Amino acid sequence: MEALAALPVALDAVGGDKAPGEIVAGARKAADEGVPVVLVGPPERVGDTLGLELIPCTEVIEMAEDPAQGVRRKKDSSLVRIAELVRDGRASAMVSAGNTGATMAAALLRMGRLPKVARPCIATPMPRPGRPPAVLVDSGANVECTPAMLVQFAQMASVFATERNGIADPATALLSIGEEPSKGTSLVKETHALLEAGVPGVRFIGNVEGRDLLGCPADVVVTDGFTGNVALKTAEGTLRFAMRLVLDVLGHDDETRAAGDVLLPHLLAAAAELDPENTGGAMLLGVDGVCVISHGSSSAVAVANAIHIAYDLARAGLSGRLAASISAED
Amino acid sequence: MEALAALPVALDAVGGDKAPGEIVAGARKAADEGVPVVLVGPPERVGDTLGLELIPCTEVIEMAEDPAQGVRRKKDSSLVRIAELVRDGRASAMVSAGNTGATMAAALLRMGRLPKVARPCIATPMPRPGRPPAVLVDSGANVECTPAMLVQFAQMASVFATERNGIADPATALLSIGEEPSKGTSLVKETHALLEAGVPGVRFIGNVEGRDLLGCPADVVVTDGFTGNVALKTAEGTLRFAMRLVLDVLGHDDETRAAGDVLLPHLLAAAAELDPENTGGAMLLGVDGVCVISHGSSSAVAVANAIHIAYDLARAGLSGRLAASISAED
Repeated sequence: MEALAALPVALDAVGGDKAPGEIVAGARKAADEGVPVVLVGPPERVGDTLGLELIPCTEVIEMAEDPAQGVRRKKDSSLVRIAELVRDGRASAMVSAGNTGATMAAALLRMGRLPKVARPCIATPMPRPGRPPAVLVDSGANVECTPAMLVQFAQMASVFATERNGIADPATALLSIGEEPSKGTSLVKETHALLEAGVPGVRFIGNVEGRDLLGCPADVVVTDGFTGNVALKTAEGTLRFAMRLVLDVLGHDDETRAAGDVLLPHLLAAAAELDPENTGGAMLLGVDGVCVISHGSSSAVAVANAIHIAYDLARAGLSGRLAASISAED
Repeated sequence: MEALAALPVALDAVGGDKAPGEIVAGARKAADEGVPVVLVGPPERVGDTLGLELIPCTEVIEMAEDPAQGVRRKKDSSLVRIAELVRDGRASAMVSAGNTGATMAAALLRMGRLPKVARPCIATPMPRPGRPPAVLVDSGANVECTPAMLVQFAQMASVFATERNGIADPATALLSIGEEPSKGTSLVKETHALLEAGVPGVRFIGNVEGRDLLGCPADVVVTDGFTGNVALKTAEGTLRFAMRLVLDVLGHDDETRAAGDVLLPHLLAAAAELDPENTGGAMLLGVDGVCVISHGSSSAVAVANAIHIAYDLARAGLSGRLAASISAED
């Protein structure tokens, strides 16, 4: 633990829509706030490192590139290298705002899975104003799931909700299309039965629906990676849509613009609570190491938050706690 | 056609959160606007019919009741009776804001399916400010689907987008977790291949993601009923969440309240465009008759809109056009 605490966070300096500028600036911010960070990327693409250490590599897996192929072919890419730094005990955690699939693949192939974990999953914070976020899992790693996989996701996400969000004994719900256990696909119904029967480390409170995802009554919401990804992106898109609508209203005429001047600071503060920028990104649970997947649009603030969270969770021994939470093999 | 035009719309007077008050008021409104309506329900529960004809029945399938069981056991329920009125050529269409599952079951069991339709599906309008709504299909009728079912949904929804929303040659997309044909579940990938290969009556433009559902670039979005229902409710819940957030901001202090007084009428006008109240409800496509499923929270305005739409679509011969659109049996 002591040794791990001193290890830097390995950051993919060239991943993300705003790389390298905002990425490196975020690293500088986190470093200034006391977290050791090491950048990884091709020096000519990273440019100014703002005084931070750069471990050079020669390749980059681009945003639109096929994840598995990218990781297989580009062995000297920033994503593969940051995963290897964690595997080799030279970094405490990896962080990337780049190609999500490739980040997962690099983490999985280089770090490996935790013992007994059938499939790693992505846990994404869902904002709850005035309270710690809920956790949506799986938000995109596994498009086809079994009930046993969802049970493991529930176990890991419960640990994560405690470690990351400070929620003791988190309440776990299953995403479905009605509260009744009879509602949903066979996957949902079978998983409901397993969770209802009792799973170590999971306090199951039943089904929630899509309408509950924002301001969620449950601390953990479990679903397959296809449904989770559709729901997450629907929520993101709807929030953006609503925000544009409000901004259109503010710009309607001189009177509304004046009123908007009064309201805008308050609206922006409220919106900031919902912004992926401030949630620090999603986490890949179930690999043998800490891997934070930041939003592709991450700015310096988001990157700095992600680095802090990765560092804190690695120091808190998240992986060990996740491994201990898994009671069954798929 | 001429005879059908004179037939009334059969309305479940006791279905919906605000039944019978708002339901009967909505019927009165539609009747005043020129649409013949007949109410169906137990007289003692309906109360004042506001001068409209009431066909009495003795039973009600309650909101929380098991749909299939309800329809099987309660043969003299309002839902079963309105479906029979359409089947027997005594009504042009059925409308209910009650138990969605039971509405589907009653329509399916009493009206039957259109020729060659494997499974009826629910088409729900998704608002697009300043443009006719997009259509999300299936938004909840079939939790487990085959590619062939999704292809039929696409065909029927394309007809519906033209008949209901006036969109000639509507663009159809598949809901997935990425634009690439390789993304998604095997159901999504196989359906993508079928649509890409060419399906009569469907202009396929590829995949859309959850983030595209509001203000959608496609006129028809096809998905299975589980994913569709989760996405629809996520969008609804997120809009409500955003609206509460804005209202909280407006109530922050005296200054924001004054600004709110200026903005509120504009905000409400913008919100009204998104309100299920004004979209007239969802439609069950693929049964042999017109069946409108209104939102459970429908007020008089929503009910009146639903009645208008049901009447207009029946008069336009929607069922015949849907039957003609289906090229394959499952």
